Amino acid sequence: MSSGTGLWGGRFAEAPNEVFLRFQESLSVDARMWREDLAGSMAWARALADAGVITDEEAGRLQEALEAIGGELEGDEARIARSEAEDVHSFVEAALVAKVGALGKKLHTGRSRNDQVATDLKLHLRGLVHRMDEAARDLQLALVELADRTADLPLPGYTHLQRAQPITAGHHALAYVEMLARDRSRLADAEERMDTCPLGSGALAGTAFPIDREALAEDLGFGGGATRNSLDAVSDRDHALELTFVASTVMLHLSRLAEDWIFLASQEAGLIELSDAVCTGSSLMPQKKNPDALELVRGRAGRVFGNLQALLVLQKGTPLAYNRDFQEDKRLLFDALDSAIDCLVVTALVVRGVQHRKAACRRAAAASYQNATDVADLLVAAGVPFRDAHERAGLAVRRALELGVELEAMPAAELEKHLPELGSDLSEQLSVDAVLARRDAIGGTAPGRVRDEAAQWRAALHDETQDPLE
Amino acid sequence: MSSGTGLWGGRFAEAPNEVFLRFQESLSVDARMWREDLAGSMAWARALADAGVITDEEAGRLQEALEAIGGELEGDEARIARSEAEDVHSFVEAALVAKVGALGKKLHTGRSRNDQVATDLKLHLRGLVHRMDEAARDLQLALVELADRTADLPLPGYTHLQRAQPITAGHHALAYVEMLARDRSRLADAEERMDTCPLGSGALAGTAFPIDREALAEDLGFGGGATRNSLDAVSDRDHALELTFVASTVMLHLSRLAEDWIFLASQEAGLIELSDAVCTGSSLMPQKKNPDALELVRGRAGRVFGNLQALLVLQKGTPLAYNRDFQEDKRLLFDALDSAIDCLVVTALVVRGVQHRKAACRRAAAASYQNATDVADLLVAAGVPFRDAHERAGLAVRRALELGVELEAMPAAELEKHLPELGSDLSEQLSVDAVLARRDAIGGTAPGRVRDEAAQWRAALHDETQDPLE
Amino acid sequence: MSSGTGLWGGRFAEAPNEVFLRFQESLSVDARMWREDLAGSMAWARALADAGVITDEEAGRLQEALEAIGGELEGDEARIARSEAEDVHSFVEAALVAKVGALGKKLHTGRSRNDQVATDLKLHLRGLVHRMDEAARDLQLALVELADRTADLPLPGYTHLQRAQPITAGHHALAYVEMLARDRSRLADAEERMDTCPLGSGALAGTAFPIDREALAEDLGFGGGATRNSLDAVSDRDHALELTFVASTVMLHLSRLAEDWIFLASQEAGLIELSDAVCTGSSLMPQKKNPDALELVRGRAGRVFGNLQALLVLQKGTPLAYNRDFQEDKRLLFDALDSAIDCLVVTALVVRGVQHRKAACRRAAAASYQNATDVADLLVAAGVPFRDAHERAGLAVRRALELGVELEAMPAAELEKHLPELGSDLSEQLSVDAVLARRDAIGGTAPGRVRDEAAQWRAALHDETQDPLE
Amino acid sequence: MSSGTGLWGGRFAEAPNEVFLRFQESLSVDARMWREDLAGSMAWARALADAGVITDEEAGRLQEALEAIGGELEGDEARIARSEAEDVHSFVEAALVAKVGALGKKLHTGRSRNDQVATDLKLHLRGLVHRMDEAARDLQLALVELADRTADLPLPGYTHLQRAQPITAGHHALAYVEMLARDRSRLADAEERMDTCPLGSGALAGTAFPIDREALAEDLGFGGGATRNSLDAVSDRDHALELTFVASTVMLHLSRLAEDWIFLASQEAGLIELSDAVCTGSSLMPQKKNPDALELVRGRAGRVFGNLQALLVLQKGTPLAYNRDFQEDKRLLFDALDSAIDCLVVTALVVRGVQHRKAACRRAAAASYQNATDVADLLVAAGVPFRDAHERAGLAVRRALELGVELEAMPAAELEKHLPELGSDLSEQLSVDAVLARRDAIGGTAPGRVRDEAAQWRAALHDETQDPLE
Repeated sequence: MSSGTGLWGGRFAEAPNEVFLRFQESLSVDARMWREDLAGSMAWARALADAGVITDEEAGRLQEALEAIGGELEGDEARIARSEAEDVHSFVEAALVAKVGALGKKLHTGRSRNDQVATDLKLHLRGLVHRMDEAARDLQLALVELADRTADLPLPGYTHLQRAQPITAGHHALAYVEMLARDRSRLADAEERMDTCPLGSGALAGTAFPIDREALAEDLGFGGGATRNSLDAVSDRDHALELTFVASTVMLHLSRLAEDWIFLASQEAGLIELSDAVCTGSSLMPQKKNPDALELVRGRAGRVFGNLQALLVLQKGTPLAYNRDFQEDKRLLFDALDSAIDCLVVTALVVRGVQHRKAACRRAAAASYQNATDVADLLVAAGVPFRDAHERAGLAVRRALELGVELEAMPAAELEKHLPELGSDLSEQLSVDAVLARRDAIGGTAPGRVRDEAAQWRAALHDETQDPLE
Repeated sequence: MSSGTGLWGGRFAEAPNEVFLRFQESLSVDARMWREDLAGSMAWARALADAGVITDEEAGRLQEALEAIGGELEGDEARIARSEAEDVHSFVEAALVAKVGALGKKLHTGRSRNDQVATDLKLHLRGLVHRMDEAARDLQLALVELADRTADLPLPGYTHLQRAQPITAGHHALAYVEMLARDRSRLADAEERMDTCPLGSGALAGTAFPIDREALAEDLGFGGGATRNSLDAVSDRDHALELTFVASTVMLHLSRLAEDWIFLASQEAGLIELSDAVCTGSSLMPQKKNPDALELVRGRAGRVFGNLQALLVLQKGTPLAYNRDFQEDKRLLFDALDSAIDCLVVTALVVRGVQHRKAACRRAAAASYQNATDVADLLVAAGVPFRDAHERAGLAVRRALELGVELEAMPAAELEKHLPELGSDLSEQLSVDAVLARRDAIGGTAPGRVRDEAAQWRAALHDETQDPLE
Repeated sequence: MSSGTGLWGGRFAEAPNEVFLRFQESLSVDARMWREDLAGSMAWARALADAGVITDEEAGRLQEALEAIGGELEGDEARIARSEAEDVHSFVEAALVAKVGALGKKLHTGRSRNDQVATDLKLHLRGLVHRMDEAARDLQLALVELADRTADLPLPGYTHLQRAQPITAGHHALAYVEMLARDRSRLADAEERMDTCPLGSGALAGTAFPIDREALAEDLGFGGGATRNSLDAVSDRDHALELTFVASTVMLHLSRLAEDWIFLASQEAGLIELSDAVCTGSSLMPQKKNPDALELVRGRAGRVFGNLQALLVLQKGTPLAYNRDFQEDKRLLFDALDSAIDCLVVTALVVRGVQHRKAACRRAAAASYQNATDVADLLVAAGVPFRDAHERAGLAVRRALELGVELEAMPAAELEKHLPELGSDLSEQLSVDAVLARRDAIGGTAPGRVRDEAAQWRAALHDETQDPLE
Repeated sequence: MSSGTGLWGGRFAEAPNEVFLRFQESLSVDARMWREDLAGSMAWARALADAGVITDEEAGRLQEALEAIGGELEGDEARIARSEAEDVHSFVEAALVAKVGALGKKLHTGRSRNDQVATDLKLHLRGLVHRMDEAARDLQLALVELADRTADLPLPGYTHLQRAQPITAGHHALAYVEMLARDRSRLADAEERMDTCPLGSGALAGTAFPIDREALAEDLGFGGGATRNSLDAVSDRDHALELTFVASTVMLHLSRLAEDWIFLASQEAGLIELSDAVCTGSSLMPQKKNPDALELVRGRAGRVFGNLQALLVLQKGTPLAYNRDFQEDKRLLFDALDSAIDCLVVTALVVRGVQHRKAACRRAAAASYQNATDVADLLVAAGVPFRDAHERAGLAVRRALELGVELEAMPAAELEKHLPELGSDLSEQLSVDAVLARRDAIGGTAPGRVRDEAAQWRAALHDETQDPLE
């Protein structure tokens, strides 16, 4: 008589402690992988039949039963969580035995939970990767649309949160499109790298049955074939790390957009207005309209970074192959990917609802000596070595600050004194439009350049085939 | 007509987006603070009455209604989560208005959600701190009992996972008692430091009503009185950080115990046997008995460290005072404290169920030249400067390794050649019991010393008053 | 013949690999502990003599030689780094042997590098703790002086970076004084907790010589006496963690101050002017004046958080007692403490050099409906339940927004329509001074309250005895 | 007269504070990029000439001077650190002006330190990436050689640090080859993704001179052309993050190898002997031989993870474009990459020096019921459904445990009772060689399979062209 639980009890004399049983449960986290557990089990049944371990008829009955279980769960997924099963894998096996009796007990032949879990997880991640990529692409689209609308709207450009040089709002929007493009590229690389099938690796040493693992990998849609080392295959969580890292760079980029826009929406800047739909008010202060969506996104970055760190820590210094420490991985990984997807979606909402205060933007872009670099550049064109031109433009700014005017508004006598090479009327040469137009090299902020870039992005994003990762 | 939600709608023209509303909900995390929200609200009602803002009769009706709400929730806590409320605070206010009508709308006078949340959280943490301390104390007790039972059981002592010098199993157990004592001391300090009342700080600038904040703090049991700066009071999350840090050192210590015992329970060491009740088997390998409880504890350390990191990150670089980023704090903090408490409880289970394989322990402690330091010490006693004694003992070990015997088992001729000062029979001087007994200074591993320490700990732990943090 | 290095070679047949030797060196990090290594060694010599292991005369000669070494190093500390020693401890021992010959080889009797390093580190940390506390106190003083100067200067108060309610600049400064007070309190707790002496714990199992460890602890100034468990004493790095955690909360607070002030110094806010002495310019843009000091402080926070994480990770899951993994601890710990000290000093420079643009501050504090809460409060005073008052104040703000005026500037007809209870002239009741003055409860922003708090802080900081941690 | 420092002083009235100047220096970190700063500057000179901003003759003189500076520095790199320059870029500019006078002041035309630093860093990372890849490949080679030598040496295979199923030592070695292959694949992806040229992006808005940025990118060897958005180009640090992430997974894998081998080298396991050349002894315990190299590698993992965290944190929530916070990035990034490279090199030393204790390995692989899975598999072959076979094998293990013998050594009567289907002599079927040979599917541990894999790896690694990332 065994006292252990269903899957591993024969050797045990004493039943698990109740507190420990609750502590070690994983069903609340892994229940969401039920579709993949069914798919993996069906493929395994076929592979066992191909290897002659069970008959084709048995494989057929197993697959039918697994499909039936799938059909029932589609309607009532919540019953997994309500069950007493240890995890989703034992839930499925129990349901199978309930349907087909002793035959159900044959399915686990040559398979272990270690390779089963590793396979289910990789299959489940496919869907999450696809959703994250779609959400990132949609945010890119929203930003490109915004760039189109604001390709020639001047905006102050900042470094160190100090006004530096005017840019266009469209240029600013496209910077985030670039970041998301790198994120999506990382995601595609990660997906390709993880596209190998661990099923058939057994617990750690390989399976003792003549399974055709390449056929099995193909059956489950793994483009990279079967994994090549069973010890590695069951203990590899690199894909969890890599996808959580991608989620982290996504969150980093979104946190920067959030910071920028929270600033632009402050009363001090007053350059954009966020939609009421993504803000909340105050329970005490009646006038408040707070950029909550952006703040929550920014704060969520910390949680995702923490998940990445936790995933690194839990594997650090663990011996080969599987250790139970790894159970934590799914909770952390799923939370990171769900978070990134949610934040991408919410940020797209914010982007689609934003309104720029155009007059204020133009006014701000024309202020605070943001054309001082152009003064130096004009001096260079007049033959002054740049380093001297920079020094003299700096002195001109100091004088203009004393006078309380912009550079182009300095009295002619002052201009003559400080910048004799440039003539007495700088209003056109130093206008915000002239300053913008001058930056027309690749990557520059000139409106024409921005419009071109936006057009290229729009075309590229629309051209993407249905599965943009392929 | 307002389109916002209940608490802050007047200023808003457009309703919140549904996706955003789901994204920003906090009820699933903060529902557990309902008792504290009621307690804080009752105290606030009294304070408003004392300040003459509402009448005593009104305060009485509010308190009665709040108590009634509490009574109803005791029976059916789950209805909070089922509600459509934004958070637990609006849930309570809605329930109050449902009971007492317009009077309920007076309760929030002079209070904001910022000081309300800050207060509820501090109150709720009291209970968690108490439970963590109790769990740590119970694990200390379990370890002290083990130390008592094994005060003279020799065990190899390791540095670098190489056998170094024999210790006693009891000495090893008491090392963890010391670590937990520091954890509890940190916990007590953290509790004392956070024992100030933020209620009455308003949204950020203080309350405009003549609230007696010291009386209010006393009413709510805050020994440190009222907070002294409203901006700081509503944005301070130091206590979340500090308690999560304490949870992190707890987890660090438990992870080291886990590592030690997983090693001692390996077939290679074979020095302890864990109870079946805290182990599991394998779905594939029938003979396996795995130390899952300890592995899960070790893995959980990563999650708690990640939470600490996330809490630091989400606050880093945020402006004063409150920002919505902070909403994440409770999820991270509660998970860290719950995790530490669970792991302390599970580890105590493991400790109470462990069996030492005594003969194997004694055998292992007497092997691998763990008495080589004593050879050097004996040479010192015979007048050899330590550094030379160390060198010569090392050469003796090399020779013994070549001969494949322990030092005390070397042929007399070899002993005479390498260690002439020590005589020809070292068996007694180098016996494991002699080696242990020699280390009798404070903190040493000598059995008598260990028994004394265990006795002192047992007395101290039993002496603790009901609330050991006081 | 041994091929190992000086301290541990007897047992080794092969010399260490050169690459490995470079990889494992620690002298570049631990050289700074030379004073403490000398002090610890002198105390150990006395303890050995008291225990009768060496003679008083020998102890005297050892101490003299150690003092002489100290004298030589005071003039030329850099020679430690230039030596070929493995670490500072072998440097000192070699210097000692060079001075007193064979006698020098007796000093390490009964001591191991494990308890020696643990002791040196604790001694060295005393100095760092003292410096960090002094730097924090000095920053508190700078902030209190600022609070004094700006106790009645209105400033917008923010939540969510949206203007919320007016505060005073002094109130804002004092918020940071509170944070630093908690940091200092944590520091004092950490110092007290680590104040126990590990010397005499041997390598792991205790010393085999009859050392009076309590006398030794007292000799070295450890108020908490000798550590109580040798295994724990040599592997305990809790103090490294705890001090790095304190450095992390310091950095968190400084990062928030940095974020606030970078914002206030932006052209958009224009509320403060930073001193040229802590800013830099641009190599390209002549007009730029960037708040580099504050940005560097904010960025450094990440490095310190990373060090905390690294310290947790490197100990996680390591077996008792000492493991070489721990060598990394000092680098991380020293960098964290040095960073926090430097950032405190630099921030004090920034605070002492700041200028508020007073007119702009007052103007900003009076704008953006920051008195809307007071409208609700006035309605409450007129008998309207708060929740209704809040709703009506919100509607009034919406109307004022449409009209493009502040609430108090709405036409009388509008006031009559929206806020009939409040009369037709709100200019005085809603003035920024009236709003500030109303928040006079403890912790509130009323100028009188702020002045009182500043005075109390100033007195408390000046009262601190020379060693503020005592 | 300006009081600022060389590059940005015109606008400043007050000189920088000395403490602040020391605090903000970066030369100690960025001096190592001098070669890349020279290369970038030469390319910029050519681009300025191509754009007609300077003459070809001027460009020629600038390039000559820059080359001369390079020649001088090759001999005496240390003079950079000894200089008073703010950073390596101003060091180079000053040296240039010293050589060619006013002409040197023209070089910075249209360039800012922001795009200059971004470019230098990417160029410098190329070399580090190459070295990391080489070090990883060399470790792969060392592991493949070990796998060759030990392809049929049995070793216990572990899950949960409990003996699970026998594997071969070669199989174990190849698991790490797989991990390193993924690391190298990530490294190659990261290198390709970062292969775009930021030079010509100006400070943030693009350059105002007609630079042919594609030609410039090609000149500097950037295969991916010019960056497409100047704001992104100067503030993008994704490559720093991504390379530090790759360093983190490298360290994670090395930490697992370290943990495994430290365990295998313990006296308890006694399965491998590490080379003296990578171990150290004890200053106190003469017999100790400690696996320091592996412990230091394992501990270093924490430092690298901390650097990754710090890099994420310092960028989180920073506004576009450049902020001075980013100055920290190089220190963290360089330390992570240097650490990973050093640890790869040291681990290869360890791998090349290891000796397996063959008899002990074989003995350990044949013990502890590691063939129990095969009993279940044999029952399956005899027609028993797997789940029942597993249960019965478990009961057989329990009985064998009671008897204190391995399964194949149970008395015939017991075998007949528990496993009647399998006959009375299991010694051959359950021999360790039979168990190993059975696992011959792809990825399995069968010696033939391991030899084949090792051969494929050896061929692949030797086939790599000189630059394995191409």
